[in-house]
Amino acid sequence: MNTQFERQVQHHLDTHDTPYLLIDKDKFLANVNSLKQRCSRYHVTLRPHLKTVRSLEAAQHILETTDAPATVSTLAEAEAFAQAGYTNLLYAVGIAPSKLDRIAQLRARGTDISVLLDSIEQAKMVSEYCNTHHCEIPALIEIDCDDVRAGIRSDDPLLLDIATSLNQYQGLLRGVLTHAGGSYQCKNPEALQVMAQQEIDAVVAAANKLKQRGFQCEMISVGSTPTAYFAANFDGVTEVRAGVYHFFDVVMADIGVCSLDDIALSVVTSVIGHNTRKQWLLIDAGWMALSSDSGNDSIPGYGVVIDQHGTIYPNLRVLKLSQEHGIITDINGDPVPFDTFPIGSRMRILPNHACSMAAMHTQYIVESQHSTQSDIWPRIVGW
Amino acid sequence: MNTQFERQVQHHLDTHDTPYLLIDKDKFLANVNSLKQRCSRYHVTLRPHLKTVRSLEAAQHILETTDAPATVSTLAEAEAFAQAGYTNLLYAVGIAPSKLDRIAQLRARGTDISVLLDSIEQAKMVSEYCNTHHCEIPALIEIDCDDVRAGIRSDDPLLLDIATSLNQYQGLLRGVLTHAGGSYQCKNPEALQVMAQQEIDAVVAAANKLKQRGFQCEMISVGSTPTAYFAANFDGVTEVRAGVYHFFDVVMADIGVCSLDDIALSVVTSVIGHNTRKQWLLIDAGWMALSSDSGNDSIPGYGVVIDQHGTIYPNLRVLKLSQEHGIITDINGDPVPFDTFPIGSRMRILPNHACSMAAMHTQYIVESQHSTQSDIWPRIVGW
Repeated sequence: MNTQFERQVQHHLDTHDTPYLLIDKDKFLANVNSLKQRCSRYHVTLRPHLKTVRSLEAAQHILETTDAPATVSTLAEAEAFAQAGYTNLLYAVGIAPSKLDRIAQLRARGTDISVLLDSIEQAKMVSEYCNTHHCEIPALIEIDCDDVRAGIRSDDPLLLDIATSLNQYQGLLRGVLTHAGGSYQCKNPEALQVMAQQEIDAVVAAANKLKQRGFQCEMISVGSTPTAYFAANFDGVTEVRAGVYHFFDVVMADIGVCSLDDIALSVVTSVIGHNTRKQWLLIDAGWMALSSDSGNDSIPGYGVVIDQHGTIYPNLRVLKLSQEHGIITDINGDPVPFDTFPIGSRMRILPNHACSMAAMHTQYIVESQHSTQSDIWPRIVGW
Repeated sequence: MNTQFERQVQHHLDTHDTPYLLIDKDKFLANVNSLKQRCSRYHVTLRPHLKTVRSLEAAQHILETTDAPATVSTLAEAEAFAQAGYTNLLYAVGIAPSKLDRIAQLRARGTDISVLLDSIEQAKMVSEYCNTHHCEIPALIEIDCDDVRAGIRSDDPLLLDIATSLNQYQGLLRGVLTHAGGSYQCKNPEALQVMAQQEIDAVVAAANKLKQRGFQCEMISVGSTPTAYFAANFDGVTEVRAGVYHFFDVVMADIGVCSLDDIALSVVTSVIGHNTRKQWLLIDAGWMALSSDSGNDSIPGYGVVIDQHGTIYPNLRVLKLSQEHGIITDINGDPVPFDTFPIGSRMRILPNHACSMAAMHTQYIVESQHSTQSDIWPRIVGW
């Protein structure tokens, strides 16, 4: 680890009160750039998902222009990014009718935001809303490619019925979208490549069926961080979405998308107890700072220990959490190096799931080896 | 359910955007009163833990006077409650030396806040800090009564050494404290009563040992919501702490401390999808609104469905979560009543763990059958 960065971290380890959320800006920028370059090589548009970072300052590094495509998962994000001038947004959670007023307001002020749906009921609600309010709300139909979350199968007869309902008064159908949430459970590059192709095949099949029936389908959107990295090609799709790659996390390292050393997010915490009898090291970061999200079933606990010098201790894990306490132990039952982490000393915890860890905080402390100043980036909160 | 309250909930179900956090104020007040009355009957002081509510408005209903005892688990809470005039606080997480400045500042402005510790290192740090800065920071020694979290056993020789270190320059030792976190895993009233006695026995044994050696021990503090309700008596202790009883949750109902109908906290959410093939009902509340905390291992999923009329569906559970999606299904495999919950309709989700659900939000919407107005209670955020 660079000594200047070490000094910076040391400075902030000493000046900010624990627990707090830290971005290693250099790793963050490298991660942002890595997927940007991959998408450029594969000639596919990247529509970054901003739900993980939820930060205007982070978005400035992720989106090169204000009309660059972006994804959000709450209208609070959409409104904050629209307020900052971003005009090309996709709200990628199935639309509830009560949210149409806010969507219409965003569109009326010049933000081209699309919505997502997977039922005739939603298609009729959107269509009738637009007819009543003399507006246009473009919508994508969500396709289920892996049985993990929302959407209809690409061979479901509902597909054409939803498209027909959407276009009842005017052409609101903008395209199709899928998300391979199942990729988080893949365990090797081959499985990830298969999942990526499955994701693409599902949405391309749906798009082709729609086009054959004369529907416009200008957006054909796939994405998850693992499939964005492992797809052999993006033939047939117009864009790829991904979010957690900005920070990466232990789950992404576990399935081979990154290494632990790529992870740009951590919580800085103080050691508040040693229990040599139980071989427990207690810290002042509980689920309130780390989240209760353990990532996936194959990863023990709630985060990996990294010391003040950047050394990762892959066997030292936060294994138990209460609200403001974390209990660290060695997953192999080896002795905990208490001398390395005396009471009052600080360490960092790498997230099993970066989105969840970030969600517990209202701001980031941002450090870079290229600056002697740290920054504070506020997070957009709420819905 | 009272029809006026129904109308009120309906009003807000319609006016606030989902997901949002709702307090049923009447149930909240009944819960607050219930433990207050029990402690009064048993002649023991109640020191409510405010880490669950983290709200000045809630505290006004919980604490009758500004010098009433209260517990906090962050200095952000301590500072907010001190700012509001509360003077009798206990910071019940093992102290990190970097936090002593903030503790000293609170005490200098008239807030009698105590700290907690369980090591000679911490005792020396506190003692030397006070000696250097010419101040007093009273401290409790944490006793481990059930091997679940922090503290030393009451028979650990360290007890007297810590007390000696604390009192090296002046009498900082204020007493002993324990928390029976293991009570959350008890499954019947008998086990809870045994755990409550174990909690009391541990801390009383420690206090007696200290007193025999001439140490003052003015605070002898026990507590968890389950043991506060199930202790046969509180002989030998000076106070009892509890926090989640303000709201209660599915865990507390599961172990028999309350009924599902007592739960005062929920998240209001919109139905955004039906998947009849998988018998899944999708809502716009994911782990971002509900938390990833499943409570304890014997409870499926992440929350129980309650409809707009207050009817609880104990078999309908949020079984899967992503960031902004929840997937509800019937835990017995029975058909999901899609007609009762059409797309766009609203329902509420009762928390498996109230502290965790509340922590995902920055404010409460508060409804009462005795008011036609709803209130907004901001939550204290951060550390």
